[in-house]
Amino acid sequence: MRTGADLAELRARKPLVHQITNYVVMNETANATLALGALPVMAHAVEEVEELASVAGALVLNIGTLSGRWIEAMLLAGGAANRAGVPVVLDPVGAGATRLRTATAKGILNEIEIAVVRGNAAEVATLAGREAEIRGVESIGSADSGAELAKAAAETLGCVVSVTGPVDHVSDGDHTIAVANGDALLGTVCGTGCMSTAITGCFLAVAGDRRLEAAAEALVAFGVAGEDAAVGAKGPGTFHAALYDALYNLDPATLDSRAKVQE
Amino acid sequence: MRTGADLAELRARKPLVHQITNYVVMNETANATLALGALPVMAHAVEEVEELASVAGALVLNIGTLSGRWIEAMLLAGGAANRAGVPVVLDPVGAGATRLRTATAKGILNEIEIAVVRGNAAEVATLAGREAEIRGVESIGSADSGAELAKAAAETLGCVVSVTGPVDHVSDGDHTIAVANGDALLGTVCGTGCMSTAITGCFLAVAGDRRLEAAAEALVAFGVAGEDAAVGAKGPGTFHAALYDALYNLDPATLDSRAKVQE
Amino acid sequence: MRTGADLAELRARKPLVHQITNYVVMNETANATLALGALPVMAHAVEEVEELASVAGALVLNIGTLSGRWIEAMLLAGGAANRAGVPVVLDPVGAGATRLRTATAKGILNEIEIAVVRGNAAEVATLAGREAEIRGVESIGSADSGAELAKAAAETLGCVVSVTGPVDHVSDGDHTIAVANGDALLGTVCGTGCMSTAITGCFLAVAGDRRLEAAAEALVAFGVAGEDAAVGAKGPGTFHAALYDALYNLDPATLDSRAKVQE
Repeated sequence: MRTGADLAELRARKPLVHQITNYVVMNETANATLALGALPVMAHAVEEVEELASVAGALVLNIGTLSGRWIEAMLLAGGAANRAGVPVVLDPVGAGATRLRTATAKGILNEIEIAVVRGNAAEVATLAGREAEIRGVESIGSADSGAELAKAAAETLGCVVSVTGPVDHVSDGDHTIAVANGDALLGTVCGTGCMSTAITGCFLAVAGDRRLEAAAEALVAFGVAGEDAAVGAKGPGTFHAALYDALYNLDPATLDSRAKVQE
Repeated sequence: MRTGADLAELRARKPLVHQITNYVVMNETANATLALGALPVMAHAVEEVEELASVAGALVLNIGTLSGRWIEAMLLAGGAANRAGVPVVLDPVGAGATRLRTATAKGILNEIEIAVVRGNAAEVATLAGREAEIRGVESIGSADSGAELAKAAAETLGCVVSVTGPVDHVSDGDHTIAVANGDALLGTVCGTGCMSTAITGCFLAVAGDRRLEAAAEALVAFGVAGEDAAVGAKGPGTFHAALYDALYNLDPATLDSRAKVQE
Repeated sequence: MRTGADLAELRARKPLVHQITNYVVMNETANATLALGALPVMAHAVEEVEELASVAGALVLNIGTLSGRWIEAMLLAGGAANRAGVPVVLDPVGAGATRLRTATAKGILNEIEIAVVRGNAAEVATLAGREAEIRGVESIGSADSGAELAKAAAETLGCVVSVTGPVDHVSDGDHTIAVANGDALLGTVCGTGCMSTAITGCFLAVAGDRRLEAAAEALVAFGVAGEDAAVGAKGPGTFHAALYDALYNLDPATLDSRAKVQE
């Protein structure tokens, strides 16, 4: 893993990260992308998503607030990204909570070649056909450990899978990486999971075929930023503001030494 | 009233609060809900709202940025909530400002059994058939006092009504409670009214049939958080960030002693 | 130019500024409008936009996240504003990046009488038929200087044009004003361009026929707020919160002496 070097390259190249995401966190994931050093573009019209996705460095699909036209746009954008060799990240927000979300996430996985799925334990377990409990979009519990779940889901879904939680696990089925960076305050702000998905897209845009590494590096970078933001934060509000500062001030030179990674 | 005890129970039970709300404040009401200690879920697709509303602790309907499919989703979700015994809160944003908003708010009140309406004086006056002036979504004035208006509206609409302003008034027609907690900075941030509606939903989710109390307790809790956030704030931006900190740090043990309530 | 006096009048009159804008920045432009001292109203339903636009002090159209019904609403609102003599500002977000955005911006300019176009160099160059490069919604470069581009675009489009960047240029074709207020941190937060468009609407609402001046005054006020917000900011997050504080605390008495303007 070379989180620092990839972050430095990302800031030099400023890749375009096309995001079709939910209304709740759209501003937040765009700002996280920009603070890290990439260029977000948020667009969902069926008339323009193929044009943007095909020239982007990565495409992020997030099903947090669905409706029919948005699903159509995600499939069109995903197809264009696949044809252009642009990596696609899927955030299956709330899979398992409603039939629509489960079916949509599965439909995207069937029709689009996904590079990385990033979700919580319950969402990933739902897609991998394993037991879990979800309340709204919050994971309440899973029968498997994070490491087992990431590995099993990667095998079933045929892509890299990131299961985030107190400790994150990223697997391609062969190798599984645990990332212990982060802070409990990340769980008190809506959209931090979605931000980690957007940042996964940022790292994929510069890491080429090193998909497993890119996914883990994104969680290291975001987790370290969370640790920095927690210093001096008095609660979710000041933490949230400090999180963008921390992403912006991430130091490529020290990032690798701060990674809490077990491979 | 037992604001502290209900807040403690809310944090222990973490009820799901399903919100169909406007684009402008979606992130803000979700974050306020989460900071207080409940679990927000934001979903508006007609294919999934019934499924979510029927398992939620409360349903919040907010008409701040309407369009046809969203109205349809609100009616479907409201019907499912009613059938499942889930309390429904209505925020009639901008009722009186356009025919669409007035008609939609009235339509929801006709078709759905609403537990609490939370609005400003002009919005509530419009629904109760009384005189008031609104500019955009801001109340400019009302012919009645807040207490008179809350009582009259509760009688007319047949539900609990919260009229918020410098002093808030909550009435079920028989009893009217005045809540004087809060800070003038709340009026400088978009969506604080909508947040108070979401928090009304949070308290309804734990207070069972004590609807009048729950509505007043929500305004006490939110007002106290506003008072705490104002300490050290330099304007709307730092106040806004501090407001989530304050909701998160609300102390159930001291909340009742800080309530400025007149029953 | 009389930025201070116009700001004082704006705060006294609190004009309604109707905004049909993108999902990403809706909360942010509403809060910037409110912090400055005007009243935002965000509404996009085809059933109500004409009603609101015709009673507003200004109408802001921003094409940042398009879809068919929103384009229809923008044209309806623009027509109603024109008939009522309400000034209309256009923010052509991403014009040049996709055919849909370029065509929509041009369509609005053809059908609606626009008072001011506010965009970055690449967006404005696209509309004026000049060379420029855009990546997503970010301007990468333009063949013309900002001053040349603002003047040429104003002549071609027949309205006031604001080209924002490190130095902003505002022109009506005859006169061109350079505004050097601002801070580099403005470029690290999504939606600051959109905020400057909203604030242009606020100043238009009080400046009557002085459109060139109003557009330049808005950029002075927003730039000064950016300078104030940068003091003590540790990155994009704390800067963003401080920006609303700074808009709220702008002092009409000192604003003109702080303007960095070249006419």
